[in-house]
Amino acid sequence: MGNITIKMLAKELNLSTAAVSKALRDSHEISERTKTRVLELAAALNYVPHPYAGSLREKKSNTIAVVIPEVADSFFSLALNGIESVAIENGYHALIYLTHERFEREKTILKDLESGRVDGVIMSVTTKTNTFDHLRSLNKMVPMVFFDRVCEEIDTAKITTNDEECGYQATQHLIDRGCKKIAILSVSESLSINAKRIQGYQRALSDNGRKPEASCIIDYSEDPDESLEQLRKCFRTAEPPDGIVATVSKMTTDIYLVCMELGLRIPDDLKVVSFSNDATVAILNPSLTTITQPAFEMGELAAKVLFKALKKKYLVLSEESTVVPSQLILRNSTSAAF
Amino acid sequence: MGNITIKMLAKELNLSTAAVSKALRDSHEISERTKTRVLELAAALNYVPHPYAGSLREKKSNTIAVVIPEVADSFFSLALNGIESVAIENGYHALIYLTHERFEREKTILKDLESGRVDGVIMSVTTKTNTFDHLRSLNKMVPMVFFDRVCEEIDTAKITTNDEECGYQATQHLIDRGCKKIAILSVSESLSINAKRIQGYQRALSDNGRKPEASCIIDYSEDPDESLEQLRKCFRTAEPPDGIVATVSKMTTDIYLVCMELGLRIPDDLKVVSFSNDATVAILNPSLTTITQPAFEMGELAAKVLFKALKKKYLVLSEESTVVPSQLILRNSTSAAF
Repeated sequence: MGNITIKMLAKELNLSTAAVSKALRDSHEISERTKTRVLELAAALNYVPHPYAGSLREKKSNTIAVVIPEVADSFFSLALNGIESVAIENGYHALIYLTHERFEREKTILKDLESGRVDGVIMSVTTKTNTFDHLRSLNKMVPMVFFDRVCEEIDTAKITTNDEECGYQATQHLIDRGCKKIAILSVSESLSINAKRIQGYQRALSDNGRKPEASCIIDYSEDPDESLEQLRKCFRTAEPPDGIVATVSKMTTDIYLVCMELGLRIPDDLKVVSFSNDATVAILNPSLTTITQPAFEMGELAAKVLFKALKKKYLVLSEESTVVPSQLILRNSTSAAF
Repeated sequence: MGNITIKMLAKELNLSTAAVSKALRDSHEISERTKTRVLELAAALNYVPHPYAGSLREKKSNTIAVVIPEVADSFFSLALNGIESVAIENGYHALIYLTHERFEREKTILKDLESGRVDGVIMSVTTKTNTFDHLRSLNKMVPMVFFDRVCEEIDTAKITTNDEECGYQATQHLIDRGCKKIAILSVSESLSINAKRIQGYQRALSDNGRKPEASCIIDYSEDPDESLEQLRKCFRTAEPPDGIVATVSKMTTDIYLVCMELGLRIPDDLKVVSFSNDATVAILNPSLTTITQPAFEMGELAAKVLFKALKKKYLVLSEESTVVPSQLILRNSTSAAF
């Protein structure tokens, strides 16, 4: 039956939410009879008050933390602008913490935030985050909202985009343009958004009666030299891919550079779709077909949900999860069918 | 004769710096005779102790603040990576505050930092910063280091690049390529780095016996629609420029888009040089000639100087100012002379 809220108790008892809230806090404003009714129902329905809700009005730092992997990425920098626009509106500072994709660093930052430095946290996990105790621990102390790189294991609000569908759309578009062999560059097995994009890619291939080849899912290296070498190797095989899906914006530069180096023409020899929010996609050589995520909106929404939690007691954050759709935008890197 | 340091006093008196420091703090470990000698010389040379130095060892937040205009810019995001690499090495957190180019916001953030939340501050001012009391006030309380967009009026370390020279180089390069009329896109009169880039542009023109036309220095609008309109207007005149210097990376996209729209070919009709650190410059259509700033190094150096100040008492920060040169990198947007 899901989480019991104050609102549900109030409705059931035909009382105001304020009265229920006061009864639960044993307020002198509420009669003993009403208190008993509220407490009995709360016990019967196994009502659990939000652990941090009670302390919210007392200590206020008027700051929120934003924990993200990096800012040298158009998605995160745009999302950050969305978060900050809402924070400013609410008279809050946003403190930005960068993990640089390092799991140890994420744990250190979250430990630091347990000290009560901030009123709430908005975050996107690293590509290496594979245990979740540090997230659970902080989630008990301050309201947390995840965006984009969410952690499915934590029970709170998650603002995502339709990653599986986008992986599907990108792949189907390449199939429609006549691509026979489509590769996908993947960043991290453990990252749920990455897994979903690959699932979408695989589903599109199956729907078209194709079998995804293991060699076509390339686990992209973090090391810049190594990643360029992976691409060279991929394009130098006897049957190189004629279509490629880049799941992260910065892979695009590598793909274009290696194509220049090897004399491969985009889109004549290779068609490219990239998940990207870069302002420059329209002026690349050739302009780039993209899955463009609603980065600013996702940041904005994550912040709105967090402030809703900061203002209301007893908000069930997991009920505030939202999926904001991305958009496939066609440009020259996939023009002209084979 | 510049600022008097503990070291200078020690040398003059043939004492250790520790002894001088203790004498100045009236330590019982130092004889009355030595104390008198130290205090007399300190008074004679007008020695002023650093206001925050005394409190450094007591309260430590193990955090520094980085106050910058935005992160959706490759210069700042790279510089931030440089700053953080040093902060992590020193066991510190870097809290990032974005001003979004709003002067009021910069003042609010600096006021907040006066509360002692951080041990030191690294910052780049907004394009609108035209009074300096908020900077002076914070500079008295915690060590501050400026980078890139420095404030000349504040007496502390400044990490900059050779902006005047780069404005000169970019302009001279366009002259060498046969450009007859060179425009420059400017961001803010009050920003010292911008003023220097324009000075370099003007000096290059004079050195070549040309007079800078007022209409060629375009005060670029912050509003995206308005700025595009400014460019259209500029290229639709009877004698449009055949060379352009963009002082900020994101202007490049506008220039390329307006050229596409108006059917102007780069570099055949217009040659473009941009101050930029974008990874995509090599894959643009055409690839972009840039002034590339040592962004990571500047951030790294700013942080190193700040940590030097945090570790040493009585460091004269203004003596730590450094100019790190940028580089002109030739690509196709200025290839083939007229």
